[in-house]
Amino acid sequence: MSPEDLVAIESIRQLKARYFQLMDQKRWDEWAQVFCVDCTIDSTQDGAPLLHGRQAFRDFLPPILEGVKTVHHGHTPVIELTGPDTAKATWSMEDMLWFPPGGERQHLWGVGFYFEKYRKDSDGEWRILELKLRRIRVEVDGVEVFGPDTPPRPED
Amino acid sequence: MSPEDLVAIESIRQLKARYFQLMDQKRWDEWAQVFCVDCTIDSTQDGAPLLHGRQAFRDFLPPILEGVKTVHHGHTPVIELTGPDTAKATWSMEDMLWFPPGGERQHLWGVGFYFEKYRKDSDGEWRILELKLRRIRVEVDGVEVFGPDTPPRPED
Amino acid sequence: MSPEDLVAIESIRQLKARYFQLMDQKRWDEWAQVFCVDCTIDSTQDGAPLLHGRQAFRDFLPPILEGVKTVHHGHTPVIELTGPDTAKATWSMEDMLWFPPGGERQHLWGVGFYFEKYRKDSDGEWRILELKLRRIRVEVDGVEVFGPDTPPRPED
Repeated sequence: MSPEDLVAIESIRQLKARYFQLMDQKRWDEWAQVFCVDCTIDSTQDGAPLLHGRQAFRDFLPPILEGVKTVHHGHTPVIELTGPDTAKATWSMEDMLWFPPGGERQHLWGVGFYFEKYRKDSDGEWRILELKLRRIRVEVDGVEVFGPDTPPRPED
Repeated sequence: MSPEDLVAIESIRQLKARYFQLMDQKRWDEWAQVFCVDCTIDSTQDGAPLLHGRQAFRDFLPPILEGVKTVHHGHTPVIELTGPDTAKATWSMEDMLWFPPGGERQHLWGVGFYFEKYRKDSDGEWRILELKLRRIRVEVDGVEVFGPDTPPRPED
Repeated sequence: MSPEDLVAIESIRQLKARYFQLMDQKRWDEWAQVFCVDCTIDSTQDGAPLLHGRQAFRDFLPPILEGVKTVHHGHTPVIELTGPDTAKATWSMEDMLWFPPGGERQHLWGVGFYFEKYRKDSDGEWRILELKLRRIRVEVDGVEVFGPDTPPRPED
């Protein structure tokens, strides 16, 4: 790891930090900018379709979270530079959602990992190229609804 | 972001880390040193008065937390240098308080953001110049007591 | 703090991040590599024996966590370089364990601090030389089972 590598690592750490904070603040247009235009989004374990492209994710997520209060916390990223313009990382995560009153579920809580790849685009900005969310446990209203016997690994 | 910028960013990250840990360890004199002498503390959303100056906060907080066990966790800071000696950041946060037995409330739990400004003082140390705490949700004994319909943003 | 110091700090931050993630992924052989061969492990507050040496911890922990789902989150490390090849840090932490069905306890949740020392070994890799876990609070199945009146400090 060189001092120059640290600039890339810090840029990626703050990139993902913006992902978390802008989502919870519902600043969707700014949030979308953390993704490469040709990104892949794999939250399929949560029942979402595999999404291709920033615009597809921009179109998909905000309506789902309309009226939902969200908190997304990310922890202890292990960030590895894989080339001058490419990197990958694993983030530990926890999220909490509170749904609008009157629905069939009130609260979702989950923990797991983001397994991700990044690319430094031609404008010099690092962005998320691949996002893959894999869960250790998800609870809805205090009841476990997902929890595999073996913990998720990057290749899953 | 230059390699030199990283020193400032890391200094600010560890500054806020000391804020969290020294508070929970109740090392109040060391804790007070993370603030500029002329800081502003805005936890008004939690019912506290707007405080001006390090000494005012040093006088205000420790008595309130006497006998209270606290845990403060900070996450994914987005830190931006705004000048050679100035910076701002948003931190995601979660806190937990356990009050002394026999009171009317046992436990407080909250999530939200710290919106902050920093200054590098003439002694070369970065300190917190403005602290503003804005909540997404607060629960007392498991019941929501605060939760705005729209999430907090830095300008709030 | 110099730009060169940042490489050591980032290396230690990612070292501990691997500790957390590899444990929760149960990648035990890779996990063991984050420790110095002559490390000391003090989780005595949790009832574990004081362990000397990487192999002793490698032998001790995995059988205990067989069939247990774990989540370990680390926060806001205050990392201090104490020499060219030595460092210390305090990490805030939270962990959650879910035990196999049918046992006498289902869930453990805890918060506290890791007080640690690190050494850069002769192969140039930073590793954990001393790990000391001290708790603020531990709950089993929602009931407090540990919670000292005074918060833990590094010297405890």
